[in-house]
Amino acid sequence: MTLDRLLDPRSIAVIGASFDARRPGGQPLHALTHYGYSGKVYAVNPRYGEINGVPCYPAIGAVPEAVDLAIVALPASEVPRIIEECGAAGIRHALVLSAGFREIGEAGLALQGALDAALERSGVRIVGPNCIGMLNLGRRVFAGFGAGFRQPDWKRGPIAMISQSGGFAYSIMAFCQEAGVGIDYMVSTGNEADLGVLDFVEHFLEDEEVRLIAVYLEGLKDGRRLRALGRRAFEVGKPIAVWKVGNTAVGQRAAVSHTANLTEEYDFYRDAFREGGFVEVREVYDLVDAAKAFRSRRRPQGRRVAIVTTSGGAGVLLADRCEEAKLELPALGAQSIDALKAIVPAFASLANPIDLTAALAQKEPEFTRATDLVLADGNVDLAIVRSFPGRDVEAWTDNLIARAESCPKPVLVSLSGTAGQSAAWSGRLEAAGVACFEVPSRAVTAAAMLCDFAQRARRAASPAAARIVPARPLPFDAAAGGLDEDAAKACLEAYGVPAPRRLVIGANDALPARIDLEFPVAVKIVSPDIVHKTEAGGVRLHVSREALPATMEALAKSAAAYAPHARITGFLVEEMAAGLEMIVGALNNPSFGPLVIVGMGGVHAEIFRDVVRRYAPVGLSEAREMILSLKGARILEGHRGEAARDIDALAEAVSGLSWLIADHEDAVSEIEVNPMMVSTAGRGVTAVDAVIRFKAR
Amino acid sequence: MTLDRLLDPRSIAVIGASFDARRPGGQPLHALTHYGYSGKVYAVNPRYGEINGVPCYPAIGAVPEAVDLAIVALPASEVPRIIEECGAAGIRHALVLSAGFREIGEAGLALQGALDAALERSGVRIVGPNCIGMLNLGRRVFAGFGAGFRQPDWKRGPIAMISQSGGFAYSIMAFCQEAGVGIDYMVSTGNEADLGVLDFVEHFLEDEEVRLIAVYLEGLKDGRRLRALGRRAFEVGKPIAVWKVGNTAVGQRAAVSHTANLTEEYDFYRDAFREGGFVEVREVYDLVDAAKAFRSRRRPQGRRVAIVTTSGGAGVLLADRCEEAKLELPALGAQSIDALKAIVPAFASLANPIDLTAALAQKEPEFTRATDLVLADGNVDLAIVRSFPGRDVEAWTDNLIARAESCPKPVLVSLSGTAGQSAAWSGRLEAAGVACFEVPSRAVTAAAMLCDFAQRARRAASPAAARIVPARPLPFDAAAGGLDEDAAKACLEAYGVPAPRRLVIGANDALPARIDLEFPVAVKIVSPDIVHKTEAGGVRLHVSREALPATMEALAKSAAAYAPHARITGFLVEEMAAGLEMIVGALNNPSFGPLVIVGMGGVHAEIFRDVVRRYAPVGLSEAREMILSLKGARILEGHRGEAARDIDALAEAVSGLSWLIADHEDAVSEIEVNPMMVSTAGRGVTAVDAVIRFKAR
Repeated sequence: MTLDRLLDPRSIAVIGASFDARRPGGQPLHALTHYGYSGKVYAVNPRYGEINGVPCYPAIGAVPEAVDLAIVALPASEVPRIIEECGAAGIRHALVLSAGFREIGEAGLALQGALDAALERSGVRIVGPNCIGMLNLGRRVFAGFGAGFRQPDWKRGPIAMISQSGGFAYSIMAFCQEAGVGIDYMVSTGNEADLGVLDFVEHFLEDEEVRLIAVYLEGLKDGRRLRALGRRAFEVGKPIAVWKVGNTAVGQRAAVSHTANLTEEYDFYRDAFREGGFVEVREVYDLVDAAKAFRSRRRPQGRRVAIVTTSGGAGVLLADRCEEAKLELPALGAQSIDALKAIVPAFASLANPIDLTAALAQKEPEFTRATDLVLADGNVDLAIVRSFPGRDVEAWTDNLIARAESCPKPVLVSLSGTAGQSAAWSGRLEAAGVACFEVPSRAVTAAAMLCDFAQRARRAASPAAARIVPARPLPFDAAAGGLDEDAAKACLEAYGVPAPRRLVIGANDALPARIDLEFPVAVKIVSPDIVHKTEAGGVRLHVSREALPATMEALAKSAAAYAPHARITGFLVEEMAAGLEMIVGALNNPSFGPLVIVGMGGVHAEIFRDVVRRYAPVGLSEAREMILSLKGARILEGHRGEAARDIDALAEAVSGLSWLIADHEDAVSEIEVNPMMVSTAGRGVTAVDAVIRFKAR
Repeated sequence: MTLDRLLDPRSIAVIGASFDARRPGGQPLHALTHYGYSGKVYAVNPRYGEINGVPCYPAIGAVPEAVDLAIVALPASEVPRIIEECGAAGIRHALVLSAGFREIGEAGLALQGALDAALERSGVRIVGPNCIGMLNLGRRVFAGFGAGFRQPDWKRGPIAMISQSGGFAYSIMAFCQEAGVGIDYMVSTGNEADLGVLDFVEHFLEDEEVRLIAVYLEGLKDGRRLRALGRRAFEVGKPIAVWKVGNTAVGQRAAVSHTANLTEEYDFYRDAFREGGFVEVREVYDLVDAAKAFRSRRRPQGRRVAIVTTSGGAGVLLADRCEEAKLELPALGAQSIDALKAIVPAFASLANPIDLTAALAQKEPEFTRATDLVLADGNVDLAIVRSFPGRDVEAWTDNLIARAESCPKPVLVSLSGTAGQSAAWSGRLEAAGVACFEVPSRAVTAAAMLCDFAQRARRAASPAAARIVPARPLPFDAAAGGLDEDAAKACLEAYGVPAPRRLVIGANDALPARIDLEFPVAVKIVSPDIVHKTEAGGVRLHVSREALPATMEALAKSAAAYAPHARITGFLVEEMAAGLEMIVGALNNPSFGPLVIVGMGGVHAEIFRDVVRRYAPVGLSEAREMILSLKGARILEGHRGEAARDIDALAEAVSGLSWLIADHEDAVSEIEVNPMMVSTAGRGVTAVDAVIRFKAR
């Protein structure tokens, strides 16, 4: 499938065409014939022979050619029939502006069904229904209705924007325009009865003239495809700025395990955004920042930012924001400092943030020379320059442009005046590709976007993680339903995740004469009917060899009291494990795929939400990175004189578990090891309790 | 002291006056004679007899009257002498624009000293030095230099802005102007050699024409005064919007206790902001939002927000942001819903966010009637209306204004177009006092500011906390230095904070024949020279009666090995306590005063920073509120079937400790109880370890 002719049609028919340019069937006809579109335009409406000079046909079948794109502006009830007629006429793409389908709820479902059937039969690919249309500024394709399509003077820019909300599509266009950021393509996807946001993302990722893709997103069906496109974004070095809304839905599904409990719908999106070449934005400002930051192809090699100012106050504020954004403010090298000292006044501050002083802003070539020295410093990956222009604004601006162009590192400018005041010179800087930001915090947001994207791209480009365990069949049959604890532990062991030495004694079996376990032990009931063994009184710890028979009896009794009809098939007797309690788990999301989760155990996970998720599988180094990014990593590393924990073994377990769910994602829906006991360094980890759930068949 | 004549001078002399309007001595002379200032203006400069028609005198003493305000625009070295001359001439206020004092470091210290001496001798009160000046738009007092004083057309507005940065003073003015927000007063305080930010805050709090005070703050000497002004702000119902920068200083002081370790310099500011009538802002946008939000005197009675839209998408986004800002989105009452159903289309959504549908925006009086119904609903404290105007923009706007004016609840408008597009109607709304916001998130920020301020004001207005323990002298002499653990616990007990039953046995005393404690006990060395008893091997838990003598011997030995020269004066023998580990402490900040802190114990406090601070003293209900606002409160309340903890007793201990430090703030610098064991409900708390430090004398 190619969307070339949909987005760049050589001919367009407006079905339901109207004389009235205020109506959905009249506006595109007017725009396509007045705003410079060079393709052919036809009108379709049985009531007219021509509309304002455009030939008008009674039906799409009567148009003398198979047009590249049909715009459908008719009542919803007529749309299914029209789509079939388009198909019969050899038309491959349609934009359906009409509303009244799924989006109106129950009442629209029948029509939606008819539309789906028509799409199936006709093979026509559509955008919409219930969308405001599509804009291709370069080709002057104003194919839609509403305020966004009444602006022939929209400024161009190498951005493609795709929106699931027509209202926001227009708001974003308008806001960006006022901020000086042009957008070449705008697609409103409406209901997505056929083509969706990701179809367009895929298309624009391969369009070399598009530097940034912007997406306004309410929800998606295919999380895996989103992730695949995120990987592609890194490959082509083109960020997808995504504005995801609808994240705080009240209706949380009831979740049994901590692993599921700790993961909300939005987390899957956010994890996908962090994994791939996305830049998450939360406000239209951020989108403007992203557009400016990524217009240049320069990317920082690290997170080390030099702040170059000519006033102390701005430096302080920029430094505050950098620290919050986890950007580093390195000291300059000794050589740079010496060279700078020869140029700047004695009271300049050469610590980062660097205050060259207001006097230097007025001096050329000193100001340029000083900025060059900072940019050339090996400790610096990106510079934020905040200064007012010197007396010779033109020369100052030219020098700044020349410097930014000759430097492989990104240079961002924080304006000291308002956008209005700085318009003359910031306009020239922007035109030359030097991004200017009206307020300091936005310059820092943009710097952080650049550094984050580049850092994640480098990580994504590193060789794929070697697997540390081979793919293995599960030692138990998924069709048999959930695994009991012993079986779940056996699965973990197959993937290199250690579990305690143990023994299962059948409910009707005699106690073995010799039990080769280290006492005291833990004893747990085995029952296919009891999930929460502890609540059922079905677990006893620190059991001595002597107390074992009586303990088994007591456990069976309390389990029977808790759940009279539960089958008790036996007892799991296992060695005790000590260590720091962690939680390790895995979840298989039907849309996004499997992910692995690690967190501090017990109340830490649930109350402090100190957990980290990544899509599975993860290699050893990625697992280590996950573990070390926990707040509780300080505990693992040996807090306040405590012994360090076996982080290596924990990383192996996390990686192993991630391969377990990745290899068996068709069958496994959820794994939880809680607690995973982490011993001191070199002494390993032990999965003390384990649950594996299978997908419903 | 009154600043009336400084801010509203009847006559002004410019000392160091110049013909050149680009120079600090020329610009104010020009502005004061050209922009409508109605007072008298004199120039002082021995080189001229008059400057552009203004009479010029050789020295301030030669001016024929004692002017209300002198503007000093001379090299720093002349300033001390000039200040003395001003004093001799009977002038009480001066603005010193000159730079070259403390702000340039070592080199300026001598001149700073001379200036301080001149201030002392002359009694002249100054603004500056190193400031850009002061602006009183209403009286056309353009008393400063730089771009901010070259704008006779600044729009007026009921805001006073005081800034420690001259650069930001101007940036803020300019940005706010472009956003349609006028500022009546601007004061740049420079070095604050004399008058500082708080002097002006105090003044403007009592100025009825000022509705909002905005402060750009780098740092303050007198935290207590800041807090007192915060209380006054609530009394007069006028918020102080404060933009504090310089919060992420790298140089953290070395701290011994957790209590100190968990508290950074910025925390004292933030706690003061939260305690009083401040609105903290982090960006100039926020300041614009605050200006709009507080222009009306309407305050919400709670945090329940109704979102009224005519498009679903905007509602989703607004709801996301409200949830993040901890604003509630209540359901409307059944009566309102019924009444609305009679007005809106069937596919409207009456759940909050409420989507009246785009069709209704075009219908009057239906749209107005629907909005009225939402506003009148008893579940609603504030409404955010997001719609485009109907076809009759004028009528739609008039109706919205009338509605907002007649409703005692705040109504905020989220514009659906850009500022530029909405200018016509949003300008009319703004002029009528209805705040309009260009992007949804800013409307929510403003709503949150209003709700937070009103909520804290209500809390501040409630009667002061009754003390639960009378003020008592400390049972030990502060002059003697730090208290040992037994003495510290006795201090706590004097303030109702329970400690274990215990006994001190002198190093050379015989073991008492009868020890009336419940065994096993904890045994600790008592030494004035060892702070970290555990590290010194000086603590042993679970000691039986029999093992006591041997344990004491062993402790003494290991302490001697750890610190050979330490004096071991005895042993503290005390009953063991069990419970949930918490940390309770108090810190006495020299600038801000004493505060009390409570947090989850052990690693929770340090690693997850789950601690809450309030300035001391706090009453029982405030202490409870602190405890319940911990993330770990869920553990205290009985998490996952665990028993609930004695929150009442913990609140008593927190309040008692807060009174202890408040009553003895002259002497005590720091208290730490770590751990504080919290038993199950009804069974109290126990201070297991306690340290009290005194101020250095």
